[in-house]
Amino acid sequence: MEATLRRPQETAPEPQTADAADAADAVTITVETKALKGALDRLARVLPARSSEPAYLSVALTPAEGALVLAGTNGAQDLELVLPAEAPPGPTRLVPAAPLTQVVRSLGAGTVTLTLEGETLTLEAGRFATRLHLSAGDLELPLDFGGDPLASLPAAELAALLEPVAYATSNENYRAVFTGVQLEVHPERLRGVASDGFRLALVDRPLPEGAAVHRTFPVPEDGDGAAPEPLALVVPKASVVELLRVLRGVEGVVQLHHRPGRLALHAEGVRYATALLDGTYPEYARVIPAEAPFVAEFDVRPFREALRRTTVMSDATNHRVDLTFEEGRVRLVSEGDYGRGEEVLEGIDYQGEPLTTALNASYLEDALGPVARRARLDLTGPTTPLAVRDAEALDGYLAVVVPLRV
Amino acid sequence: MEATLRRPQETAPEPQTADAADAADAVTITVETKALKGALDRLARVLPARSSEPAYLSVALTPAEGALVLAGTNGAQDLELVLPAEAPPGPTRLVPAAPLTQVVRSLGAGTVTLTLEGETLTLEAGRFATRLHLSAGDLELPLDFGGDPLASLPAAELAALLEPVAYATSNENYRAVFTGVQLEVHPERLRGVASDGFRLALVDRPLPEGAAVHRTFPVPEDGDGAAPEPLALVVPKASVVELLRVLRGVEGVVQLHHRPGRLALHAEGVRYATALLDGTYPEYARVIPAEAPFVAEFDVRPFREALRRTTVMSDATNHRVDLTFEEGRVRLVSEGDYGRGEEVLEGIDYQGEPLTTALNASYLEDALGPVARRARLDLTGPTTPLAVRDAEALDGYLAVVVPLRV
Repeated sequence: MEATLRRPQETAPEPQTADAADAADAVTITVETKALKGALDRLARVLPARSSEPAYLSVALTPAEGALVLAGTNGAQDLELVLPAEAPPGPTRLVPAAPLTQVVRSLGAGTVTLTLEGETLTLEAGRFATRLHLSAGDLELPLDFGGDPLASLPAAELAALLEPVAYATSNENYRAVFTGVQLEVHPERLRGVASDGFRLALVDRPLPEGAAVHRTFPVPEDGDGAAPEPLALVVPKASVVELLRVLRGVEGVVQLHHRPGRLALHAEGVRYATALLDGTYPEYARVIPAEAPFVAEFDVRPFREALRRTTVMSDATNHRVDLTFEEGRVRLVSEGDYGRGEEVLEGIDYQGEPLTTALNASYLEDALGPVARRARLDLTGPTTPLAVRDAEALDGYLAVVVPLRV
Repeated sequence: MEATLRRPQETAPEPQTADAADAADAVTITVETKALKGALDRLARVLPARSSEPAYLSVALTPAEGALVLAGTNGAQDLELVLPAEAPPGPTRLVPAAPLTQVVRSLGAGTVTLTLEGETLTLEAGRFATRLHLSAGDLELPLDFGGDPLASLPAAELAALLEPVAYATSNENYRAVFTGVQLEVHPERLRGVASDGFRLALVDRPLPEGAAVHRTFPVPEDGDGAAPEPLALVVPKASVVELLRVLRGVEGVVQLHHRPGRLALHAEGVRYATALLDGTYPEYARVIPAEAPFVAEFDVRPFREALRRTTVMSDATNHRVDLTFEEGRVRLVSEGDYGRGEEVLEGIDYQGEPLTTALNASYLEDALGPVARRARLDLTGPTTPLAVRDAEALDGYLAVVVPLRV
């Protein structure tokens, strides 16, 4: 600091371009600030922060009779939200998403008036006014919510197929299909499956009350009376996350639409579409243990806590924990460079010969994640796969975990 | 996935080294898990996650009569915490900080028993036991909580000198002294000052009840009756943050100790020390506006909200906002590449000729941060520095902000 504080640098503001159009095409929309904020926040999660494709950085605003329709895309996922609004029907205009979202986030409760006129959007709330330049006039969003009707089902049912298994997807691209969740539509059942090649998670549910499948299933030519082939769609993990957010906001039934490479969802006030991954999962039924000579049942919460404590010092590479099941209890032992953790947990429902198996503790904890209260482990031997189920709902969720090679 | 799921890779566990010492030197310490967890969490904030210096990755455990003393250092800051414990006095042992912290975090409520024996620390809680290898036996922590007695004052008074001004420090090293807060000890006053060369923040407080300064002040040789020179210590920003955390945990009085390059703090159950930055702030009194022909007073909350709304679209480089004060109100205008925000805020106590000044909105918002309810701006002109004060406590906090060059 010399004699005075220095002045920060100033860059010259750009001159305002004159409005290209006159007042004749002005459209005024009044909407609840909170609802607009919520819709823009949801779009902000789909839209990229940066992109070389200008369309992915814009929100499409379409005033309709009594509604404002907002839409955006990141190329792989499209999202459209309908808000109640005072508005006359009007053409779609594109607005840069980030500044619009920031301005609306800064507003207090109440209503906001949006005026689309020429090349500007003016937002007014109380004595505050903001003028935003629209996106370049020739820009269009490549939105696509089409496809053949596939099924209709309660939103919560669709979420229940995807949410419990999403953890088991792979983060690696060595086999791209494993980076997504496989959604299977059978004539009378629906199924969600995920795997990374080391473990598998699966939810199987009968078609619920109020649901319908709108397609016919080809019967394999080579088999007499063989089961018809299900339709298997692999939804990328990022889209599963967003789809679950959309489903949480929907009450009632969603319509699924499908065509090769694309899945769309329509519901009250929202449409969502995602690109699908190429291909389907390889045949996985044979990795599910058929018979289990050893069965352990236990309350999942104390087991999970013991597992976490014991494995704090586990080997960072494989998170190994050795489990020894004995009559009425399990011993957990885990060892790494810094030391060793050991705990004996009572209250395990287990009969038969003691059995020791070495597992990746993270995989076991993940597999137990969807189990609400009581877990059942079907163990086939010290070095062969085990199955994890919810002891109170044996038919729904299933996970397969493979022991470590020791 | 082929016929079976693949097995994750297993690395061979390292063989356990035999304990080097026998049971004769075993020390057993019992301590509340929650208190130990809290102390380790505080040390974890000071200690680095990675370091080439092994001592910075260890926690020193010293059992004392009825207490357990924990200490750690990152080379620039040392922290020592004393916990009530059942323990006999014993030698200091070093334990790798990260695994110890993780194990203790995983424990439930209750007490934990620590047994130091040979080269291992065993933690036991209920049926859970963990064995941790100690740090290499010849390692020592370079802790230093010494220095000459400087002052004693209530913890809250020291915090009140540092917390309101810390925002104004610089993040750039072009003038290293500005990366710290200057703590000034005058015979009858204490002061905290921070600046980054563009703005200045200052808190000045008389020595409070129950405080004392334990040093004499040299009187400048060249001046008859000149004020004695204060002691100015520049505390690095990172240490200010940690020091404030320490002070929040202290009730009552803290003792400050000082010697060149180092400041230490002693209080009930805690000792803390930090390296100081070299040098002191340049003379800054002349940048504080002496007379202000224009004065504005207003409630800080609605002003702050209007400022945030208006500047969402401000130029990203300088966050420029133009303020026009008029009788009873202020107009805020901000403009950037995407558009323009404007708001008129009523309820401003301002008399005289209208005045427009262009400021960095972030600097203004920062400067208003410590003002609880009502702010006072002393404006000297459109392009000259303005002073921000708390209108309800004019003598305590002061900030100087320089307008943008327009």
